[in-house]
Amino acid sequence: MKSTIRDVAKLANVSISTVSRVMNAPETVIEEKRVKVLEAIEALQYQPNAFARGLIYKKSDTLGVMIPDIENPYFAGLIRGMQDAAVELNHSLMICNTDRDKQRTITYVQNFFEKQVDGIVFASDALHTEYYEEMQRYRLPFVLASTNAPEFDIPSVDIDDEQGAYEAVKYLIESGHRRIGMIGFPLGETISGLPRYDGFRRALREYGLNTFETCVEYAEHRYEHAYDAAALLLTRCPGLTAIFAASDEFAMGTISYLRDIGKSVPEHLSVIGFDNIRMAQLFIPKLTTIEQPTYDIGYRSVQKLHELITTGEVSVLREKLPHQLIVRESTRPY
Amino acid sequence: MKSTIRDVAKLANVSISTVSRVMNAPETVIEEKRVKVLEAIEALQYQPNAFARGLIYKKSDTLGVMIPDIENPYFAGLIRGMQDAAVELNHSLMICNTDRDKQRTITYVQNFFEKQVDGIVFASDALHTEYYEEMQRYRLPFVLASTNAPEFDIPSVDIDDEQGAYEAVKYLIESGHRRIGMIGFPLGETISGLPRYDGFRRALREYGLNTFETCVEYAEHRYEHAYDAAALLLTRCPGLTAIFAASDEFAMGTISYLRDIGKSVPEHLSVIGFDNIRMAQLFIPKLTTIEQPTYDIGYRSVQKLHELITTGEVSVLREKLPHQLIVRESTRPY
Repeated sequence: MKSTIRDVAKLANVSISTVSRVMNAPETVIEEKRVKVLEAIEALQYQPNAFARGLIYKKSDTLGVMIPDIENPYFAGLIRGMQDAAVELNHSLMICNTDRDKQRTITYVQNFFEKQVDGIVFASDALHTEYYEEMQRYRLPFVLASTNAPEFDIPSVDIDDEQGAYEAVKYLIESGHRRIGMIGFPLGETISGLPRYDGFRRALREYGLNTFETCVEYAEHRYEHAYDAAALLLTRCPGLTAIFAASDEFAMGTISYLRDIGKSVPEHLSVIGFDNIRMAQLFIPKLTTIEQPTYDIGYRSVQKLHELITTGEVSVLREKLPHQLIVRESTRPY
Repeated sequence: MKSTIRDVAKLANVSISTVSRVMNAPETVIEEKRVKVLEAIEALQYQPNAFARGLIYKKSDTLGVMIPDIENPYFAGLIRGMQDAAVELNHSLMICNTDRDKQRTITYVQNFFEKQVDGIVFASDALHTEYYEEMQRYRLPFVLASTNAPEFDIPSVDIDDEQGAYEAVKYLIESGHRRIGMIGFPLGETISGLPRYDGFRRALREYGLNTFETCVEYAEHRYEHAYDAAALLLTRCPGLTAIFAASDEFAMGTISYLRDIGKSVPEHLSVIGFDNIRMAQLFIPKLTTIEQPTYDIGYRSVQKLHELITTGEVSVLREKLPHQLIVRESTRPY
């Protein structure tokens, strides 16, 4: 049988209104009682149903957003989409930058709970079990944006990264390139790492270019690292005519390196990026890339969170939005 | 005589603890009483002193940050600095994107108050009187980052924009350029607009180049607008050999335009930017620019806010941090 707020109050040895306050205005409840109530909620796996939730929790019309790296231009479009959706819903957004730091991420979940956000959009980072548990502990509705969690049933909005990478490399191959390398994210990155490498490999294999599977170097998230990775890649695989960079920032770092060794893009090598950040069309040469619908991902993720908060469920659990190849100047037929 | 919490309670016809709750956990007080208390606070110009404030207000160890445009890469460095300072102080940051929208900005101030942030960093937008009054109404300590408010005594951290622009243009002149134009922000922008134009004009006048004072076109905040403004500028002032762009993004838009009409930078024209955003050294050509210490501005602004919150005052009201000229590839002697 499902437990009720009455059961929680009994187990924690507090009044029902104290339980309500812990969920509603936790900072008005002394630490000791608050912990007791949270422990009781956990022990009983108490989960107010959607309707009761609305009655018990005060709606703050504020949504929390957790992003891993405010300096990465990828997030600008994502946040823009989130904000437009929030404005339409008459909600406010509070954004926190986690730096992919586990302790900070967990602190921010607690923070959001205490600030009574109605829910959280968790963007672009792997959903570690600790994060999942922390969200569950506070019964905070949340959705994933530009990431997903195959092991948990959490609503998510993102793209098919493997397919996007496959199409980028296929485009290079169909343009006549046969010697293709990759600058990728570390394979441990569950979203941008392994899937994009898998797409690269699938395209190579499909065209019998298996020998280039090992022509890949990994970079952390910044162009400086891609610059260094490009140097390693071209030392190890000197005959490449095209490079698939797993992000536009990587493509820019790669092109900067090539230029510094006197090679022009696309005259000497073609380079294709991924994401279509705003800079992609500003850069010289303008980047050929796989466009992620970042604005739409942000927009849909806030809508989905709102759906989850107001109805207690979502109609589509894992939503994949379409990506597309955008051909500009950084690639040419070989 | 300074009014006390007792006076506020009396005037609002509520208990002292209600006044305290309005300041401490406003969402637990019904709207009607809350408004009465806020009105009484305003009528009596009640301001808890720093010590009393600590006693009355619960510290949340959370700071609010208001920025005008999350898509502008200028803010990445600023937020990075704020975050590092906040982490050192064991504080959390909540960031809101105002889009320079007055109503949204005011809503966020109310929001931050209700979420009980300890204070606010207000970044890079003009401090309109309405904002100032809203902050005063809620007695929220706040500091200005990368902006300032000559008409109010509000702590601020920024640079000397007029002097920075002056040095940029002086550098072009001393490199032999005599026909210099500018892509600027609208003059109504109190920080990046008029002061940077004033610096441009001062340098021109100092070298007797007054005739080029009118070779200026204005752009909104994006490179697309700078691209269009560059087209206008070169139509109106076709003989220019150098352009001072009031932001790096403007410099990139200008260079993109020049390239599209077949002019290379710096071979045909020199272009100097402003800010030194991360992209400035990634762009091809790498930008010559005036570096703003964005990280330090962010870092110092949070330290200053903390100083204000904990002591009730700041040792330096208007703090100017040093800028510097960074010579890269987008300029050359004429």
